[in-house]
Amino acid sequence: MTTPPRINRDRLLERLATFNRIGALPGGGNCRLALSDEDRAGRDLLVEWMRELSLAVTIDAIGNIIGVRPGRADTAAVMFGSHVDTVATGGRYDGLYGVLAGLETCEALNDVGYVTRRPLALAAFTNEEGSRFPPYAMGSLVYVGGLALADAYAIRGIDGRSVGEELKRIGYAGSAQPGWLRPHAYLELHIEQGPILEDEKRAIGAVEGITGLTWTEVTVTGCSGHAGTTPMHLRQDAALVSGEIIALVHRLAQKIGGHQKGTVGRIALYPNLVNVIAERAVLTIDLRNTDQSQLETAERELASSLARLARDGGVTISTRNLARFEPVAFPAEIVSLVETIARDLALTSHRLPSGAGHDAQMMARICPSGMIFVPSVGGLSHNVREETRPEHLEAGAAVLMHAVMRLAD
Amino acid sequence: MTTPPRINRDRLLERLATFNRIGALPGGGNCRLALSDEDRAGRDLLVEWMRELSLAVTIDAIGNIIGVRPGRADTAAVMFGSHVDTVATGGRYDGLYGVLAGLETCEALNDVGYVTRRPLALAAFTNEEGSRFPPYAMGSLVYVGGLALADAYAIRGIDGRSVGEELKRIGYAGSAQPGWLRPHAYLELHIEQGPILEDEKRAIGAVEGITGLTWTEVTVTGCSGHAGTTPMHLRQDAALVSGEIIALVHRLAQKIGGHQKGTVGRIALYPNLVNVIAERAVLTIDLRNTDQSQLETAERELASSLARLARDGGVTISTRNLARFEPVAFPAEIVSLVETIARDLALTSHRLPSGAGHDAQMMARICPSGMIFVPSVGGLSHNVREETRPEHLEAGAAVLMHAVMRLAD
Repeated sequence: MTTPPRINRDRLLERLATFNRIGALPGGGNCRLALSDEDRAGRDLLVEWMRELSLAVTIDAIGNIIGVRPGRADTAAVMFGSHVDTVATGGRYDGLYGVLAGLETCEALNDVGYVTRRPLALAAFTNEEGSRFPPYAMGSLVYVGGLALADAYAIRGIDGRSVGEELKRIGYAGSAQPGWLRPHAYLELHIEQGPILEDEKRAIGAVEGITGLTWTEVTVTGCSGHAGTTPMHLRQDAALVSGEIIALVHRLAQKIGGHQKGTVGRIALYPNLVNVIAERAVLTIDLRNTDQSQLETAERELASSLARLARDGGVTISTRNLARFEPVAFPAEIVSLVETIARDLALTSHRLPSGAGHDAQMMARICPSGMIFVPSVGGLSHNVREETRPEHLEAGAAVLMHAVMRLAD
Repeated sequence: MTTPPRINRDRLLERLATFNRIGALPGGGNCRLALSDEDRAGRDLLVEWMRELSLAVTIDAIGNIIGVRPGRADTAAVMFGSHVDTVATGGRYDGLYGVLAGLETCEALNDVGYVTRRPLALAAFTNEEGSRFPPYAMGSLVYVGGLALADAYAIRGIDGRSVGEELKRIGYAGSAQPGWLRPHAYLELHIEQGPILEDEKRAIGAVEGITGLTWTEVTVTGCSGHAGTTPMHLRQDAALVSGEIIALVHRLAQKIGGHQKGTVGRIALYPNLVNVIAERAVLTIDLRNTDQSQLETAERELASSLARLARDGGVTISTRNLARFEPVAFPAEIVSLVETIARDLALTSHRLPSGAGHDAQMMARICPSGMIFVPSVGGLSHNVREETRPEHLEAGAAVLMHAVMRLAD
């Protein structure tokens, strides 16, 4: 190597801007729900860009896109990437940044004509968000063998369509077997999606591990009745019990403290009319913790509290598990590597856990994995106002490139 | 009159059963939302039956259907009736019973060839439920001049369509001016929709008046964010504040006690995803009381509590009034008349207020008005399991017929 490779910030920002015209929302932000027409358009552009950089593109049967850059040796590749789907009101960087910074890594190496010893593999995993089809990180989960392909195909989304149908419709049900490339290591660069790096005034997050998570769908069945005639003490009001569940989930997370989170983000009442006591409510509960025993405590307390609310509210409550993942701890060597490279590049860094789930959480099952975070302005994510400063976008890409080079050495 | 007129129970029950084939729900109950195709089919059948009994049918510009049976004198008519629309998961008797018992009254008088002194006018008012288009009792409210026709036409429903468009679409934007017939008196027979008559073991309710009511649409605006990364204490969670509002409304009604009711029946979260903190929630609050000063207390306390919840939750809360009606007291003579006739027919009766709004509440603005209630099994209404025993259906119709004859004498 005569000239050391350098991240081209303008090229990275321009690719982000170009890609984000796909699924752009009127007031800002993006909607590229998994396997939608917008997701397909994004995938097509990514594949085109990968081929322009001479990556060998393979689509597997769950739609994961992997572009391989050959190495000097015929050995296991170093994989890096993330996802290009978004939530319904998503921002510009969640997922996409990690993929396009990976693309920039390949191009920066091309610029100086540097070939790593190990091959490099840039991955964009299918349906990381899980907003349309549960569970989240579906593509990487199938890739590591945690979910059978046939089971994934059969999953129906919020619009009633199945994963299998939609993969075929958008032309991304590939022929390769998920897991066909078993990496030497996996590294994922991502925006933090929380306020910690900003609060700590650090440029780089060395991610120690990923939170565990339980998604539960709760159905409350009461008795509908007339809002003007049914005495308050005789009601079996599914909306009232739902309100109590929302408050309970928040209180429970606050009581456990630490990294415990609890969120009710979705609710539907039936018949959902101003003058009718709700007969039924369906809501979701998202519980997360980096500590498995605390997460189990939260699950237990939730279950007993739901039983008490059902009794007190004269309703029945049933639950259905939508997703459940234990916390993951990344290998100490990968966490240290990220810190070391940040220091070498004169960047500040901070160790922290990830409160969000990521594809790296699944990849950790088959190879040493890790993550690099960059700060999110105001800690905002899954929000159209999601923002990361350009110098941080550049810094994260530089850490990724150098870490990949080191791992592929 | 050689033979006294008699209610034909079988005929009444058969008409109820035939009519309820329209908009029948698979598991029981009915859906004939105002100005829907099902509402049109019901209206068509009613008009056909009115004409078979030689009533002169007039449709006014808000779609109210009035069938007139001439009297011996050319003087103000005695009006009676109710409505034939339902909530989305409605029962078989709410509204329809009063209209078809009115039809049976006309036929029973026809059977014995009896002509009252005053003309009789059987009315089916448009959109009493207000489930699709607020406010409720729209047809009678326009009829008495409480809502301008143009304003009513412009109201958009939960599906975005306007009252004016839908009235024209179903062919019930008539040419008569609402209010064209100013009645001598108005009487409405209806199921109680609450548990009081059943609890008191009485067949007939002599309704003293109608509850006052406020419908408020509340919009909570917080900040969306990632469910796994946003610290609990930094959240501006519109779902959490909505849950607190639901609980608050219930507590407020219980605290005020008496006839105070409070219900949240409708809610929508945005973006409504399992892993995204809700940015916005829109919900409705239904407050009712037969005592105006208590209702005003409830409104005041709600407003100050909403302000406090907004402050504590870091969200903004805006409200929009959807409907507001003061309580109505029916004239003592009409209440007594219902009691007297019940006693004459050897039926037990009980005085009670109505917790539900009715067209009689609007008609009371232009003529002496009153209501007759029959028991609801289990107090259930706005519920597909709504039920009234056949002997009570017959008893109520008999009281209606005799009260109408007396008022038309």
